[in-house]
Amino acid sequence: MKTSLLAHATAPEFSNWLDNERATVLVPVGALEQHGPHLPLGTDSLLATAVSLGAAERTGAKVAQTLNYGYKSQQKSGGGNHLRGTLSLDADNLIGIARDITRSFLQQGVRNVVFVNGHYENYQFLYEGVDLALRELGLSDPAGPSVLLLSYWDYVSESTLATVYPQGFPGWDIEHGGVLETSLMLHLHPELVHMDKAVEHNPALLPRFDRLPVVPERTPHTGALSAPSGSTAQKGRLLFERTVTDLATDLSTELGLER
Amino acid sequence: MKTSLLAHATAPEFSNWLDNERATVLVPVGALEQHGPHLPLGTDSLLATAVSLGAAERTGAKVAQTLNYGYKSQQKSGGGNHLRGTLSLDADNLIGIARDITRSFLQQGVRNVVFVNGHYENYQFLYEGVDLALRELGLSDPAGPSVLLLSYWDYVSESTLATVYPQGFPGWDIEHGGVLETSLMLHLHPELVHMDKAVEHNPALLPRFDRLPVVPERTPHTGALSAPSGSTAQKGRLLFERTVTDLATDLSTELGLER
Amino acid sequence: MKTSLLAHATAPEFSNWLDNERATVLVPVGALEQHGPHLPLGTDSLLATAVSLGAAERTGAKVAQTLNYGYKSQQKSGGGNHLRGTLSLDADNLIGIARDITRSFLQQGVRNVVFVNGHYENYQFLYEGVDLALRELGLSDPAGPSVLLLSYWDYVSESTLATVYPQGFPGWDIEHGGVLETSLMLHLHPELVHMDKAVEHNPALLPRFDRLPVVPERTPHTGALSAPSGSTAQKGRLLFERTVTDLATDLSTELGLER
Amino acid sequence: MKTSLLAHATAPEFSNWLDNERATVLVPVGALEQHGPHLPLGTDSLLATAVSLGAAERTGAKVAQTLNYGYKSQQKSGGGNHLRGTLSLDADNLIGIARDITRSFLQQGVRNVVFVNGHYENYQFLYEGVDLALRELGLSDPAGPSVLLLSYWDYVSESTLATVYPQGFPGWDIEHGGVLETSLMLHLHPELVHMDKAVEHNPALLPRFDRLPVVPERTPHTGALSAPSGSTAQKGRLLFERTVTDLATDLSTELGLER
Amino acid sequence: MKTSLLAHATAPEFSNWLDNERATVLVPVGALEQHGPHLPLGTDSLLATAVSLGAAERTGAKVAQTLNYGYKSQQKSGGGNHLRGTLSLDADNLIGIARDITRSFLQQGVRNVVFVNGHYENYQFLYEGVDLALRELGLSDPAGPSVLLLSYWDYVSESTLATVYPQGFPGWDIEHGGVLETSLMLHLHPELVHMDKAVEHNPALLPRFDRLPVVPERTPHTGALSAPSGSTAQKGRLLFERTVTDLATDLSTELGLER
Amino acid sequence: MKTSLLAHATAPEFSNWLDNERATVLVPVGALEQHGPHLPLGTDSLLATAVSLGAAERTGAKVAQTLNYGYKSQQKSGGGNHLRGTLSLDADNLIGIARDITRSFLQQGVRNVVFVNGHYENYQFLYEGVDLALRELGLSDPAGPSVLLLSYWDYVSESTLATVYPQGFPGWDIEHGGVLETSLMLHLHPELVHMDKAVEHNPALLPRFDRLPVVPERTPHTGALSAPSGSTAQKGRLLFERTVTDLATDLSTELGLER
Repeated sequence: MKTSLLAHATAPEFSNWLDNERATVLVPVGALEQHGPHLPLGTDSLLATAVSLGAAERTGAKVAQTLNYGYKSQQKSGGGNHLRGTLSLDADNLIGIARDITRSFLQQGVRNVVFVNGHYENYQFLYEGVDLALRELGLSDPAGPSVLLLSYWDYVSESTLATVYPQGFPGWDIEHGGVLETSLMLHLHPELVHMDKAVEHNPALLPRFDRLPVVPERTPHTGALSAPSGSTAQKGRLLFERTVTDLATDLSTELGLER
Repeated sequence: MKTSLLAHATAPEFSNWLDNERATVLVPVGALEQHGPHLPLGTDSLLATAVSLGAAERTGAKVAQTLNYGYKSQQKSGGGNHLRGTLSLDADNLIGIARDITRSFLQQGVRNVVFVNGHYENYQFLYEGVDLALRELGLSDPAGPSVLLLSYWDYVSESTLATVYPQGFPGWDIEHGGVLETSLMLHLHPELVHMDKAVEHNPALLPRFDRLPVVPERTPHTGALSAPSGSTAQKGRLLFERTVTDLATDLSTELGLER
Repeated sequence: MKTSLLAHATAPEFSNWLDNERATVLVPVGALEQHGPHLPLGTDSLLATAVSLGAAERTGAKVAQTLNYGYKSQQKSGGGNHLRGTLSLDADNLIGIARDITRSFLQQGVRNVVFVNGHYENYQFLYEGVDLALRELGLSDPAGPSVLLLSYWDYVSESTLATVYPQGFPGWDIEHGGVLETSLMLHLHPELVHMDKAVEHNPALLPRFDRLPVVPERTPHTGALSAPSGSTAQKGRLLFERTVTDLATDLSTELGLER
Repeated sequence: MKTSLLAHATAPEFSNWLDNERATVLVPVGALEQHGPHLPLGTDSLLATAVSLGAAERTGAKVAQTLNYGYKSQQKSGGGNHLRGTLSLDADNLIGIARDITRSFLQQGVRNVVFVNGHYENYQFLYEGVDLALRELGLSDPAGPSVLLLSYWDYVSESTLATVYPQGFPGWDIEHGGVLETSLMLHLHPELVHMDKAVEHNPALLPRFDRLPVVPERTPHTGALSAPSGSTAQKGRLLFERTVTDLATDLSTELGLER
Repeated sequence: MKTSLLAHATAPEFSNWLDNERATVLVPVGALEQHGPHLPLGTDSLLATAVSLGAAERTGAKVAQTLNYGYKSQQKSGGGNHLRGTLSLDADNLIGIARDITRSFLQQGVRNVVFVNGHYENYQFLYEGVDLALRELGLSDPAGPSVLLLSYWDYVSESTLATVYPQGFPGWDIEHGGVLETSLMLHLHPELVHMDKAVEHNPALLPRFDRLPVVPERTPHTGALSAPSGSTAQKGRLLFERTVTDLATDLSTELGLER
Repeated sequence: MKTSLLAHATAPEFSNWLDNERATVLVPVGALEQHGPHLPLGTDSLLATAVSLGAAERTGAKVAQTLNYGYKSQQKSGGGNHLRGTLSLDADNLIGIARDITRSFLQQGVRNVVFVNGHYENYQFLYEGVDLALRELGLSDPAGPSVLLLSYWDYVSESTLATVYPQGFPGWDIEHGGVLETSLMLHLHPELVHMDKAVEHNPALLPRFDRLPVVPERTPHTGALSAPSGSTAQKGRLLFERTVTDLATDLSTELGLER
């Protein structure tokens, strides 16, 4: 089974791989969400998929089909669910998908499932789905099959941030459509980035609470929470390489993958 | 908005398109399912996506991100859910996804949503999801926003079948991994088809009832319900062109799309 | 336990039967749905019940109380859910009922449960309910307790169709309130059939897609999808006898029932 | 529309009736539950249906198809769900059915829906289903469409009890398979009652709490909570006539039905 | 572990108690519901908590945090859910909470869980939650871990009623804001009772059916179903002491608690 | 209505308050969760309640009954759900409770509902419940009724942290049973804190991913994620006063509350 993509493997290839390896499947999870005037709606899915593929190539893990729709955009992390271009799932469905996919893969004989998240708001619902699947399967032995969850930016180190944001990192909460995502996209999918449409503006200043219904004017008019000024493909490459390397190292260490 | 793929459009492009056109979004729905030794697990998703893109290019509709996971494989139409390589959602989650996506798109201002199904077992659950979304939104006027559902093979005409199956069409129920899917894949994704692995065997002879738990030996050992012998890229092209053309015609007529 | 109807048996009779036989329970599933001007709303329930009783008498199986409400009528198979006289369940409830009944019967010691469906739209939801029950009970051995699902018209053979439709069978999809159902009702419940109210009209010509909200004028004004002209009690008797005989044979062979 | 049974009416008959009368539909709700050695499993459904038909004939209301499966038998009111012959639904499905049926009938134009319950444990779940349907439909005006819920024994008066139980009424809680149900069945379905199998025993003495898992020996070995000694068809006729008359009077007064 | 309140114990105290005793946890369940002009909204929660604490002190059981929100108020038992001050949960959430709490406590090693209900309408939903949890945990042995359910007024004996209601007990159904609850509150929380606001009125005269939407004028204008006239702290003390004593005796006998 | 506690108000008091003020209700949300050897299981509920009461007194808002059970403890924020003393709700129930309570309060006429969270893992599920309630009620106007969500530690400012942690703040993620919670409890409920049981240990060093099933040894043996050394009632008072003051200011400004 040469391909890293499960969707491209045949059933016998998949079956052989299950038997012969410490089979680990990475599941990228994204969203269809507005990302300002310069980034495409599929940014979160594209980045989660790219990071998963990068880590898979370095560890022998395989990449499942991407979960393309995510939880609702929240104003403090994604501008809000009222914005055009943001399509969302209710919590129960995202929980259910994570549960079904975890159950399905583990029942087929996959040893480890790793959810690689690219949309901040998804995280807790993926967690619940995984927990429910493990309870249903009666799995509680940490030495047995396992599931890992992570958001790819958890693998961006302090030192990388210092390089990417020479004037100081403004905080993860407003990194939506900002320098990190834009730089990664410039590195990975430059044809989908429109830097000429990028608008300079101050970072969003949001209250300490969430308010619903959303007060739309609290989101910057671009929909991005911080401006992408200073984004470069070079920074993107640095971010991507370090993230993927660290993630691959972690997966290898934690799950005994060898390459 | 030049791209047919919503995931590649920016939010302002999407927003402008919503305002200025009779906005129609096609949602391909597939599965991750074993398709015998010669076809990849992602066959249903790949075909539904390709048909959607083909119809979109002819009608000005846009294609949303593909729903990559489908309902359980049933023995009489897909060999059964016990087979390795078949990963599935429970009905409630597939219903929920169809509901959320229908609601989301219509609330954003999309005029028509069209689910283009590529995995037989999905259909009734997509239908229920759409029905629930319309009830929730209070939409019952046939002159207002609408949702269409179809499986792409509903657009394969009798005359096309006569060409593709010169010795007679064996029936849709056992067309899983058979000549139709294989020919389409040979036309659209030849690098993912392994005709050298294809096995000649008689079509599956299944009882008139469904039985659960499944009796595994009733499914041919390949996992395909009929053999792909006789599949060619040329047949695939014929199938694809006629299907896409007929679908595009139907969408244009039914939804007033112009191109 | 002489009666074929579980509702008429006492608990000790049921309990003894459970212990001493290869206990098989048939569950008829119908609907409350308009069937044109000549057939009663309960047609699907009445037919599923009659077929179940016929098969039970020939196999020693017992018939559980009928599930009297079904899934929504779809325009392409039942005229649509907007029509007066059509009362429906959402998918989740029909799934849940099938799940609960399957679980209940199997936990009581019933060996086989057979759902005998009389309303087209029910099928996939019954299937899901059964699958969920078996997963919950941890049953995956095909040699253990089992569940069969079928729609009674799956047992109408090609040769029977040729007799009943001398000018050619118009297709199952538009057989709603048509010759098959009407003939069966004329044979089984003639007092509930009003042939004087039957209206001659062409078969429905429906598009290849489903559209929601429904365009009402696509359904013939009678609510039936094809006219009942040519229906006779004699055809009904033929249909009933052959269907019940073939079903009984299948049940006996598949489940080892003897009589 | 002469018939009282909706299942026996045609769609045009039903539709005319909807337009011309203060249309009221009674929905009998029962169970498939052990009722001791002398009564059939379908007792609750049979009694709820008979009472509904009796009240319908006196008021011009119509009777919908019976809901044949009910909530779990509880030890203090039905002996317990562990007993053979007792088949049950989970709460969510019974709630869902009541919700769907209420919604369906009201949306079709029915003015009043009346649930006539014959299985003690069903009540609260029917209530919730009705409440959810009304909330969903936005109905809160008491002068508009309405839903009534009742258990038929709520219409057994003190004076009737004094006649039926000359030595004092032992209490509703242990009236399961006892004199009331047995007498009613002797009046309505004598061929289904086996008084020769009836066993004399003391009334059940159950604790003030419910305990789960059930302690089986707390239920009398017959499964009935009190003995049917003293049951007669004459008492059954009295119970039935008074109950039906009082119910019909209440319905007429409350809903403005005239006859 | 000296405290009776789990919320006040530390984890090691709780853990030791689990290991060394026949650990029984009481879970008070109340509501936030109008109780007429003289009683506070939290009456049901306060009373269920007080009874639980009283029983715990006499048996060594511990009291979990109170479930403060209950099922909808029904007109015949609580005046109706339309009244200001009545905040309610849907059935599925109350069922779910009872299920989760039962599962959680039993999985931690608690031997017995006892739900002490103080709001009439909660009961059936708590029952369902418990049943689902036991099914999920596979517990069906009556000699193993167990769950008890009760409403505290089930422990008010006939003789106590005779003392408290010298002119005859009007019936549990209209005991909402009446003498029983008021007297208990005068004994336990006199500072929260406003007898000066109490209004004399006849007991509610409600029909034998439930009607939805509610006809508001059928509820007495105070919101109480019977007047609190004659309530005294002395009666409250009697009620409380006898209830708690009988409950403690029952728990000790049933669960083998010793003190 | 003098009391800040809704549970202590009568229905007429509540009703008057609804009519005459810009009625705002605070809903404290906690958990029953192990908090190391020195803090009680109810810590999160106690703190959320205390902060709510403090803010209510400064703004005229009222405090609803506390939600005493929360979402599962996650290893990276609470040590993990496997620990004794941690009792949890599944996501769907916490979502449902938040939804029901939001709907109930807004339908009663409350203008603003504010969830004051004290258990990290609850947040996203509360958010979803609120969003579903607003969608159901059709509320999307930011000038209309609103709901705020916050965790009380969002109101601990940088400058306060600098005072409380003179050697640097170790991060919110491991503040479970640490200096912040312990100091607050020493200030508010000193009798429930056992500093003599507090154990010195290094902060937890947890991986960047979540892993399920949990590897128990990654949680410090105390169950706390950082040691409480250095906690004082004085720090607690500072934390409490500043938090409550800032929260009250925010509520007043945002919701137009006056005092």
